[in-house]
Amino acid sequence: MNRDGERGKVLLSVTGFDPAAWHDALKQAAPQRDIVLRADKAGDPDITYAVVWKQPPGVLRDLPNLRAVFSIGAGVDHIFSGDEVPDVPIVRVVADDLTERMSEYVVWQVLDHHRKGPLYREQQSKTIWHEVRMQPAAKEVSVGILGLGTLGRDAANKLRMLGFKVAGWSRTPKQMEGVQTYAGRSGLDEFLAVSDVVVCLLPLTQETHGILSASFFEKMKRHGALGAPVLINAGRGGLQVETDIIEALDAGRLGAVTLDVFQTEPLPADSSLWRHPNITITPHCAATSDPRALVPPMVAQMDAHDAGKPLVNLVDREAGY
Amino acid sequence: MNRDGERGKVLLSVTGFDPAAWHDALKQAAPQRDIVLRADKAGDPDITYAVVWKQPPGVLRDLPNLRAVFSIGAGVDHIFSGDEVPDVPIVRVVADDLTERMSEYVVWQVLDHHRKGPLYREQQSKTIWHEVRMQPAAKEVSVGILGLGTLGRDAANKLRMLGFKVAGWSRTPKQMEGVQTYAGRSGLDEFLAVSDVVVCLLPLTQETHGILSASFFEKMKRHGALGAPVLINAGRGGLQVETDIIEALDAGRLGAVTLDVFQTEPLPADSSLWRHPNITITPHCAATSDPRALVPPMVAQMDAHDAGKPLVNLVDREAGY
Repeated sequence: MNRDGERGKVLLSVTGFDPAAWHDALKQAAPQRDIVLRADKAGDPDITYAVVWKQPPGVLRDLPNLRAVFSIGAGVDHIFSGDEVPDVPIVRVVADDLTERMSEYVVWQVLDHHRKGPLYREQQSKTIWHEVRMQPAAKEVSVGILGLGTLGRDAANKLRMLGFKVAGWSRTPKQMEGVQTYAGRSGLDEFLAVSDVVVCLLPLTQETHGILSASFFEKMKRHGALGAPVLINAGRGGLQVETDIIEALDAGRLGAVTLDVFQTEPLPADSSLWRHPNITITPHCAATSDPRALVPPMVAQMDAHDAGKPLVNLVDREAGY
Repeated sequence: MNRDGERGKVLLSVTGFDPAAWHDALKQAAPQRDIVLRADKAGDPDITYAVVWKQPPGVLRDLPNLRAVFSIGAGVDHIFSGDEVPDVPIVRVVADDLTERMSEYVVWQVLDHHRKGPLYREQQSKTIWHEVRMQPAAKEVSVGILGLGTLGRDAANKLRMLGFKVAGWSRTPKQMEGVQTYAGRSGLDEFLAVSDVVVCLLPLTQETHGILSASFFEKMKRHGALGAPVLINAGRGGLQVETDIIEALDAGRLGAVTLDVFQTEPLPADSSLWRHPNITITPHCAATSDPRALVPPMVAQMDAHDAGKPLVNLVDREAGY
């Protein structure tokens, strides 16, 4: 509390989302807090928390009593881009709702490639009845998950439960039951060599920027269970080099790609990604942030923090996520 | 054994499948048995088992020492159609491989409707970037499974694990943890009233023939979590009335439909199902019968039966499945 017995204000700045829905959810979960869409004055001392997504430049500056910043999405790279970020804790969203939505998306897209969705839809459009008899079973297909945080681990478990072989790669070594794990730069080649499908759920950091590029695709498995390897990126657009993706598809080094995120969003109308026959495009909808689900745990953290308890799911500024 | 110390022949008659692949798998699993594609003579006394799919008329007649008939697919209606079936046990395929493939298909198609696959693909074709923000979470969507045999129960468990609410309907009452179950004619209306998506995995019998018809669609939930209800039929084409499906789609009583099976297969080129914008068609590929997986347990049953042990997964001729 900024003054005795009184709650501070919450600054809400969520570009690209409907602020009204987030405002309503905050008012409902924290009726005793004022929710403001901007600081009334420079250096507003009453603002103690900020809830943000791609906040405009300067929004987080000059808030002397700011105690923490909450991101409403799983990624936090947007907080660091183009703004001086005050030296307060940054809290990532870790919520079952977001995790489950991401796993829905990952399982959906893995199955769509595994079960030849693009081919069967093309056949339907041409009135062709032809069953591909060499359909492998899930247990014959290896799905590799890049990133074994909360999202990656949940997706890995659900893919396993559907019968897929699952591999996982993370920056630092991690163990997971039933998942073959690899770590660090040195583990990446081996990971790519065993994965028929690679699902990217990495955070965007200086280290991961542009990782999905020609040299990465060159290391991917050739002649896998689904033919040429499949790439699914539901992490961040900055992870991928889009010209390299198109070149790898056209050269047959990649068989098919699903992209939910892009170097520029919305994806420009003149991007050749839109019309490539082997690319599935979704408009950054893999795991939408639902204020009904995400706001109550945020407010619970604010209350706990005001009561002197530590925040959880903090961003490591050094690692960038 | 038909004569002391000697194994009988196995008659293999699998219309629409590659007999060579089944022949090879049988020879490998049962090197001591002769595999024949037809009886050498009327009344061949050496044929003790038959492995069949849509066998031509007469194939099973006059086999005095036939001990059992094995179906290579989950359904057995094909055995009864257009032929006199000898009075021997009929064995259904119950195999993890087949069950897992069917669950892959069911989960894939449920997710494709739940996550708005048809809409996002249409948007991509028109270069439209638009996220549908009212995407429900899986836990807000009820999937109803018609048929709670091995296939239905496995699909139900996998959908539950992905977070969906799951209901189930069966001819006779069944209990399943975490699944709201309904039974019999009297339970069908209630089942349909709660299901946003209905997945049909019923066997084709006199009782179920044409069950997916106008009166069924009339009882389905209106204004569900996904809008108008979704129907997925991966059971048998004879369960559905295709003219009623098109009428219900055009009247808005059904929102979208996935069909893997059809009244006539292959689906005739002039069927209007092919080009309906709200129908996804796959060429009876939901759960392909893989001889590598299905033959060894069949041969194990033949050997056990020859040794005097009872057969399992027998068809109830009265019920028709």
